[in-house]
Amino acid sequence: MCVERLQRRTGIALWRQVADQIRQSVLTGMAANERLPAEAELATRFGVNRHTVRAAIAALEKEGILRAEQGRGTFLNDRKRLSYPIGPRTRFSSGLEDQAQTRSGRLLSSRTTPAPPHVASALSLPADAPVIQMATVSAADGVPVSAATSWFDARRFGEIAEIYAETGSITASLARLGVDDYTRRSTAVEARHASREDLDLLGLSPGAIVLLTRSIDVDPEGRPLQYGESRFAADRVELLIDSAPPARPVGII
Amino acid sequence: MCVERLQRRTGIALWRQVADQIRQSVLTGMAANERLPAEAELATRFGVNRHTVRAAIAALEKEGILRAEQGRGTFLNDRKRLSYPIGPRTRFSSGLEDQAQTRSGRLLSSRTTPAPPHVASALSLPADAPVIQMATVSAADGVPVSAATSWFDARRFGEIAEIYAETGSITASLARLGVDDYTRRSTAVEARHASREDLDLLGLSPGAIVLLTRSIDVDPEGRPLQYGESRFAADRVELLIDSAPPARPVGII
Repeated sequence: MCVERLQRRTGIALWRQVADQIRQSVLTGMAANERLPAEAELATRFGVNRHTVRAAIAALEKEGILRAEQGRGTFLNDRKRLSYPIGPRTRFSSGLEDQAQTRSGRLLSSRTTPAPPHVASALSLPADAPVIQMATVSAADGVPVSAATSWFDARRFGEIAEIYAETGSITASLARLGVDDYTRRSTAVEARHASREDLDLLGLSPGAIVLLTRSIDVDPEGRPLQYGESRFAADRVELLIDSAPPARPVGII
Repeated sequence: MCVERLQRRTGIALWRQVADQIRQSVLTGMAANERLPAEAELATRFGVNRHTVRAAIAALEKEGILRAEQGRGTFLNDRKRLSYPIGPRTRFSSGLEDQAQTRSGRLLSSRTTPAPPHVASALSLPADAPVIQMATVSAADGVPVSAATSWFDARRFGEIAEIYAETGSITASLARLGVDDYTRRSTAVEARHASREDLDLLGLSPGAIVLLTRSIDVDPEGRPLQYGESRFAADRVELLIDSAPPARPVGII
């Protein structure tokens, strides 16, 4: 495990810096099910006391990255970061199908509301047009991956929240409302510290980072269908953008 | 300014949480050159003491987000987040040309080294093949935007570091070495806390977040040219992925 010097007086507690470095090692180098060095050794390596190491380990156990086995020590869980593809065919339901046995979406709340300016603009609707706003959490193999807020034209998709509550899938819900296909038009990606609410929804430790995507999906005629703001747990997910042009059909070259 | 409840015992100091929230307000709502509320008022809003508010303001002044004017108060600088496009034509030199008067790249160091496994794989080279490794910092209007490590096949691009030191542009350097065009094949995006070194290179406050991209560029024949790992200051840059298919040529429809 590569140890970087900790920074004091930074506003980031030492235990969190230790946790960040252990987490990073897990994601880049250490083998699954490898045993973590003993607390005393970690304390020496990081130049901190054992109390600090213990706080870091406790946070990582809570996140599911480490597991304590009675009398045997602390082990790394077998958990790889997921690669979430961003492209014309982005869908939560199929984007992770090779990486997780199960994908699920859960509706937390929904309401009809006048579109805020940035939502109206993204959906090409008049200001204050009625939109359905849905809050959802998506999980892969039971682990929360992203929390999202999505908006839809209420006149076109008035039923979508009820259908989503049943299907757990935006793609399936849109299909039921007559949209057989859609494509992603654009995605903006930012990163920030998770809000208190997202920490709860995603089961993260305070100080965790989220990748925030703001995306627009359109129907085959190019009309905006969905504007979404998703927060992906940065410790669990990377975004993958394949920008190679599609392979040319054989016979044309 | 919208105030979210601060979280105690999180590993993130209160002053940093206050700074994060003020920075977020600047990026999303407050107008450029608006005056920040007085320290006492901010202390009341956030439910912290004035010392904490002062530490937050000092960090944001250091980042260039706020400026103190003697006897007049603290003001927001006119600074928008840059949108860095990721797509087949991604280039630092042209990607920000509508958003910044000047773009520049600075070579920090370079060396020839056997390719580490993930670099050899990205560049389709045999393990341990010699590669040029370059460390660079790119800036827009004089403000650092990203710090990057890039790798090139040493047998094909042995001179690239010397040329980059002169031109400050990967595109111009590759052109000088006979590569007239190239495209981005793939980009993976992660987010993490900036390392100590990146804090210095990018002029960030400790605890700041970076968007890490790992990208592969290929020549028109599809041969990998460059593998790069760039760290973008998340407070200054968002990544923008346009995945709409190119407009169909007129006359074919």
